[in-house]
Amino acid sequence: MTARNLQIDGERLWSSLMEMARIGATDKGGVCRLTLSAEDREARDLFRRWCEAVGCTVTVDRIGNMFARRPGRDPSLAPVGTGSHIDSQPTGGKFDGAYGVLAGLEVLRTLHDHEVQTEAPVEVVVWTNEEGARFAPAMVGSGVFAGVFDLDEALAKTDVDGVTMGEALRSIDYSGDAPLGHPFGAFFEAHIEQGPILEAEGRQIGIVTGVQGIRWYDVRIAGDEVHAGPTPMERRRDPVGGVAEALARIHGLATSRPPHGRATVAIIHSVPESRNTVPGSVAFSVDLRHPDADVLAEMDAGLRAAVEESCAARGLDGEVSDVWHSPPTAFDPGCVGAVRKGAELMGYGAMDVVSGAGHDSVYISRQAPTGMVFIPCKDGISHNESESAAAEDVAAGANVLLHAILDRAGA
Amino acid sequence: MTARNLQIDGERLWSSLMEMARIGATDKGGVCRLTLSAEDREARDLFRRWCEAVGCTVTVDRIGNMFARRPGRDPSLAPVGTGSHIDSQPTGGKFDGAYGVLAGLEVLRTLHDHEVQTEAPVEVVVWTNEEGARFAPAMVGSGVFAGVFDLDEALAKTDVDGVTMGEALRSIDYSGDAPLGHPFGAFFEAHIEQGPILEAEGRQIGIVTGVQGIRWYDVRIAGDEVHAGPTPMERRRDPVGGVAEALARIHGLATSRPPHGRATVAIIHSVPESRNTVPGSVAFSVDLRHPDADVLAEMDAGLRAAVEESCAARGLDGEVSDVWHSPPTAFDPGCVGAVRKGAELMGYGAMDVVSGAGHDSVYISRQAPTGMVFIPCKDGISHNESESAAAEDVAAGANVLLHAILDRAGA
Repeated sequence: MTARNLQIDGERLWSSLMEMARIGATDKGGVCRLTLSAEDREARDLFRRWCEAVGCTVTVDRIGNMFARRPGRDPSLAPVGTGSHIDSQPTGGKFDGAYGVLAGLEVLRTLHDHEVQTEAPVEVVVWTNEEGARFAPAMVGSGVFAGVFDLDEALAKTDVDGVTMGEALRSIDYSGDAPLGHPFGAFFEAHIEQGPILEAEGRQIGIVTGVQGIRWYDVRIAGDEVHAGPTPMERRRDPVGGVAEALARIHGLATSRPPHGRATVAIIHSVPESRNTVPGSVAFSVDLRHPDADVLAEMDAGLRAAVEESCAARGLDGEVSDVWHSPPTAFDPGCVGAVRKGAELMGYGAMDVVSGAGHDSVYISRQAPTGMVFIPCKDGISHNESESAAAEDVAAGANVLLHAILDRAGA
Repeated sequence: MTARNLQIDGERLWSSLMEMARIGATDKGGVCRLTLSAEDREARDLFRRWCEAVGCTVTVDRIGNMFARRPGRDPSLAPVGTGSHIDSQPTGGKFDGAYGVLAGLEVLRTLHDHEVQTEAPVEVVVWTNEEGARFAPAMVGSGVFAGVFDLDEALAKTDVDGVTMGEALRSIDYSGDAPLGHPFGAFFEAHIEQGPILEAEGRQIGIVTGVQGIRWYDVRIAGDEVHAGPTPMERRRDPVGGVAEALARIHGLATSRPPHGRATVAIIHSVPESRNTVPGSVAFSVDLRHPDADVLAEMDAGLRAAVEESCAARGLDGEVSDVWHSPPTAFDPGCVGAVRKGAELMGYGAMDVVSGAGHDSVYISRQAPTGMVFIPCKDGISHNESESAAAEDVAAGANVLLHAILDRAGA
């Protein structure tokens, strides 16, 4: 058998996914496996045993990231990495994160079974605290690894009980001493799409060309708090009028920029919450996304104009505060090409996609050539106990991952 | 001096208002005199002493309403009543309620000074718990008096500490045994406008022809809760789009029906409040007001259409729940005429107005001919420690009240 003919074992991969999903399993078929919890430890231990069973060495760095290394012929080469995360949302699913880790494990097992030796080492990584559900922010392990976050600041983050990440790492024995931020020759991450496009288009594989840029804002529109009865409409400065126009225009920023433009107003609340008082102000969050930095900048300007003009027309006061900005990520053409070749080799229906969600690979791409493989998920649903994926797609994604890794690691 | 030449003593009235305002005075110049509190008791005791000093008899009914009666020539006639309330909002002002009570007191004092005997008795009333700030709902004393609320249910209402209204009444010794709901030949209430119209129009007196009908609703617009990143705009059922259209149309229901139409969306909140999740639903309150029942019914239909059509256009689910309905109140033409004549007699600039806020007189009007006198309040502000009124307007309103009472009681 040549490397070109290699295929992963879809049944074994599925069975490992289901075994992993028993750790933290919820009644509704999902998973609650918060980062650095007893469940996370159990899942990490299981992953470690599985990797060691195929001859890999597992190391852990100071933020708890795990690296299962399979040696290559040339020990001087930087490893080709793959992986994702095994922590989940409080009411998360079986596939988000765990799929990327176990697809990587399945690659290791396949190489092991067929005694394939690669030029470069292959490493399967578990990034710590991707979800940010217990310790904010999200993607901390990959962010610290890539130098985006400071290690000590990350270790000092506390959960709702006041436990620090450092304490939590030590309590589950996953505070290691492997050096932070070692180089990768290339890095791949397999993941469920968390959106509806592949399913709608009937494709098994998403060749991820990049990740949307994201801008987060807090907007506040203020007027005068007056009694709802005696004050005539024309004498009010009612922020709700400005909000109605601004919301419509903010959605328009995205609907006028298909297919990638996104605008979401998620948190809306008025102050004070008194039924017969015209609110003094209304605050809302805005999340704008686009994969092209120039277009995202246009949307940013459009948001500011929408708020300013909606307020000016009504004598209201508008305020747009920047909360967070993640620039668009364009993945490495070599890695994207390796994913494309893998899908072609296997004959899967594939399409280029842009990830609308953030992933550990966004941070890793800042220091290593990176690519991602998406597979469809049922109804585009994730971060939900009903999250689901088809076994044949799970296998297909792992086969693409296998061949992308072989391409970069040299078989 | 004939009755036609009688005038109240503006300085004495102002001085009594300021003395009353010391009870529960706040640092910012307002008043915190919650119903049936120690401060309310002190204010009631002061009112009682003032009334008894001019020869009136004060009785208290089972819901704590106080009646200071000045006999008329014909004891068989039902009294002409006037009054308001002396409880306040937690951060209330000096004039809301207290003005109506002390203007009534000033009428008693003026009749006493000039030894004017009226045909019918005159009664100045303090209605219990108009504000509803400690025990919901509002206007309980007048509502029980008029048979709108059940006495025992009202007495069983609890505050945030679990104290019932009955217990609170007994604790301040204002649970009396005067019969509930005795007849009035006429009833007048003087009150600050709580709105900006008189000030804007430069009139001292508002001849209140009625009170707006009010309809309260809870609206919920629901779609699908999905991730803000991966889900394309055209695949979303984002309730915010429907909300934006509905809010604009709801305001339009009032702006298209000037000068009396009012529409207020006061409480708005999205669920869940997660910045990167398209909200599954957005809930908001609606308060619609109009003095004409037919027009209010049109506005009601317009609200339902606005929600239904805003949702239908986007595949969203809309739900309109009725919360409360207070039909429009048209005051008694005889009483309105008596107020108008009083203003004319005194030569004050006056205009007909419709009250946008509810008042004790709304309930009293269900069993007695009723009218109201409004005076301007600074910037239309009430329910606020900065609430203010001009001394000359305070005096003018009391003079109008005096002559309206004389007109109905027979001098």
